[in-house]
Amino acid sequence: MLYLVGVGLSSIEDITLKGLRVVKACDHVYIDAYTSILSHGIEEIEKLIGRCVNKADRECVEQTNVLIDYAKQSDVAFLVVGDPLAATTHLDLLTRCLESNVPVKVIHNASILNAAGCCGLQLYEFGETVSIPFWNELGRPESFFDKIEHNYMRGLHTLCLLDIQEKSIENILRRRDVFEPPRYMVCQQAAEQLLQTASRRSEASKVPRVETAMHAIVTPPPILTPECLVIGLARVGSDNCVITLSTLYEMARPNDAVPTPISQLLNGPLHSLIIPGRLQPLEIEWLMARERYSGNHKGDDLPHILISFEGEPATPFDAFCSEEIKRRRKMIIDSMFSYHCKHAIKSVVRGSD
Amino acid sequence: MLYLVGVGLSSIEDITLKGLRVVKACDHVYIDAYTSILSHGIEEIEKLIGRCVNKADRECVEQTNVLIDYAKQSDVAFLVVGDPLAATTHLDLLTRCLESNVPVKVIHNASILNAAGCCGLQLYEFGETVSIPFWNELGRPESFFDKIEHNYMRGLHTLCLLDIQEKSIENILRRRDVFEPPRYMVCQQAAEQLLQTASRRSEASKVPRVETAMHAIVTPPPILTPECLVIGLARVGSDNCVITLSTLYEMARPNDAVPTPISQLLNGPLHSLIIPGRLQPLEIEWLMARERYSGNHKGDDLPHILISFEGEPATPFDAFCSEEIKRRRKMIIDSMFSYHCKHAIKSVVRGSD
Repeated sequence: MLYLVGVGLSSIEDITLKGLRVVKACDHVYIDAYTSILSHGIEEIEKLIGRCVNKADRECVEQTNVLIDYAKQSDVAFLVVGDPLAATTHLDLLTRCLESNVPVKVIHNASILNAAGCCGLQLYEFGETVSIPFWNELGRPESFFDKIEHNYMRGLHTLCLLDIQEKSIENILRRRDVFEPPRYMVCQQAAEQLLQTASRRSEASKVPRVETAMHAIVTPPPILTPECLVIGLARVGSDNCVITLSTLYEMARPNDAVPTPISQLLNGPLHSLIIPGRLQPLEIEWLMARERYSGNHKGDDLPHILISFEGEPATPFDAFCSEEIKRRRKMIIDSMFSYHCKHAIKSVVRGSD
Repeated sequence: MLYLVGVGLSSIEDITLKGLRVVKACDHVYIDAYTSILSHGIEEIEKLIGRCVNKADRECVEQTNVLIDYAKQSDVAFLVVGDPLAATTHLDLLTRCLESNVPVKVIHNASILNAAGCCGLQLYEFGETVSIPFWNELGRPESFFDKIEHNYMRGLHTLCLLDIQEKSIENILRRRDVFEPPRYMVCQQAAEQLLQTASRRSEASKVPRVETAMHAIVTPPPILTPECLVIGLARVGSDNCVITLSTLYEMARPNDAVPTPISQLLNGPLHSLIIPGRLQPLEIEWLMARERYSGNHKGDDLPHILISFEGEPATPFDAFCSEEIKRRRKMIIDSMFSYHCKHAIKSVVRGSD
C-alpha cells in the first residue's frame, strides 16, 4: 500500500494524528523534497516518527518506480508538504500505482489553497488559482495575467502561486535533468511582472485599430493598475507568517528603492500573492480590525499585517509612533480601500455587460 | 487568546499535533456544532483531549460574546470542522475578538475545498466554488447555475457545496431563531435542481425574440445537459468515502426509480457535487485507472469509484461479474468521457469567442 500523507504547511507538528499513526506503522518513509519548501528539517521528522526518512527527489518520484516497487510488498508512506493532491505530479504517481495493482490512500491536510483564507478574504470568493512563472531568456509568458483579469472582472479574488525553479537556464536549454537548490519567486518579482504586463498591454491598446463596419472596437481601460490593492503572504501557517496590504506599485518596488520596502518585510519564502476582487463588507471589516489591532499590539501571535504606501517607509507597526503618522496611515488605507472597491465594482459592472 | 482550531474532515484523528497541543493547554474548549457535520462524537474528542468540550450553537457564536469574554481572561479553543476560515461566520468572530483587544490564532487543517482533489481533478483547474441552496416555498434561486455555466464555458471544474438547513420554513417565515437538527442536501437533489434549471432555461430560450438590425440574437445551446459528466463525493476524508462518476441525468434519479440508484450508493451526508469542465489527459487517466482498479479489487481502502448509467443498475463493482457487462460498462464510460470532453472543449471554444 502507498500512503500519501499531507504534512501541512509549516512545522512537523502540522501532521495529523492519523497521518502520524500511518507513518509510524509503515515500513518505508519517503518525503517529497521538491514540490514545496520544507521548513522543518528531516531530522525533526525522524525524531518524531522514530524511523529513517528518505528524501525523494523529482527523478525518484516521476521517472522511477522505486516507491511503487516497495509498495508492492510493504507499506510505504510518502510525505508531501501541504495537501498531497495539490501538485499534479502526485496524481500521476497514484495513477501508476493503481495500474500496478498497488492500493493507495490519501491523508489530507491543509494546503495554501485553503490556508490563504488567513488573510481574511473569503475562500468562496476566489476564482481560478494562477501560477506566475519566472520570466527569463526562455520566455515571458503572460497567461496568468488574463486569468487574474478575468477573475477581477467578475469581482473574484485571485490566489497567485509563485514559481519554484530548480533548473538553470543552461540545463533547460541542454535538456539536462540536473536539479539545483530551488529558487523561490517572491511577491516583489511577481508584482513587477504584473506591472510590466499591465503597462505593455496598455501601450499596445493605444495602437489605432481598424474599426469594422459593424461596430467600433472599444478598448477597455486597464484593470490592474499600480494603485490596485494586493495582499502578500509569506510562510502561511508558520509562527512567522507575515501578511501585507499594499498597492501593486509598492509591492513591485525593488529592494533598494526605499529603506524598508514591503518585500523586505515579507522576507524569505514561501510567498503567495493575492489580487483581491470586490471586497465584501465583512472582509473589509476584518482587514481594518486587524490593521488597527496590529497598530496597538506588538509581538503577539497574530500574523502581522503591514501596510506600505508611497512616500512613507513601509514599516512594521512599531515604527509608527506619532499620532500624525497614525492619522496619515489611516487616511491612506481608507482611500486605498475606497479606490479599490470603487474600481473593482466598476470592473464587475463592466464584466457583466 | 482565542484559538480557532481546524479539526479536519472526518474523525478526531484528523486534528494536527499542533492543534491537539493547543487544545490540551486551553482553559475552555468549545466546538462548532452547526456549520458542518461532526461524524465523531463529542465523547471521543473529550477522551482524546482529557477535558470537557462545550457545544457552541449558532446563537452562542454569532449573537453572544461568550467565547470572547472567556478569551479576555483565559485561553479558549474553538474547534471547527474542516479549516476554521472556510465558513464566513468565523471571520466575523475573529473581527469581534480583535475589536475587543483579544488576540486570535488560527490553526489550519484540510477542508473540502482542497480535499475535493481526492476525485482526481486538479485543484488548479477549479473556478469559483458555488453553494446550491434548497429550493422550497420561499424561493428557487438559480444563481449557482450561472456560476457553474461560467466556469464550464472556461473549461474549469466547479465544486458545488450543498445546503445545510437548520430552520423550518415556518420558523423562517415567522423570523424565529429556532434551529432544528440540520437537513443535508444530497447530490441527487442538487442534480435535480440543476436539471430543472437547465430545462427551464432551455424552454425559455425557445421563445422567439425580436432580432435587432445590428445582428441576430443567437441563443447558445444549453451547456449543462442530462448527458453531462458529474462526480459525486460523500464523506470525503473518512474511511467510508464514496466517489461516483455518472451522468447528470443518472445522478438526478429519485431513489425509487431503479434498484440501486447512485444516490443510494453515495448514502448519507456530507455530499458535494463536482461538475467537471474540460478534463486534462492526466485527470482522465486517473479516473480510468481508478475505475479499472475498483473493478478488480474489493473492500480495500481506496474510496470506491462507482459508475452508473441508464438501463443498468448503478452498482458497486462486485455486481459486475460477466464479461459482457464489463464490456458494456467500458463502452459506456468511454463514450461518456468522449462526449464530455468534446462537449466541454466546444464550450471552451465558444466561451472564448
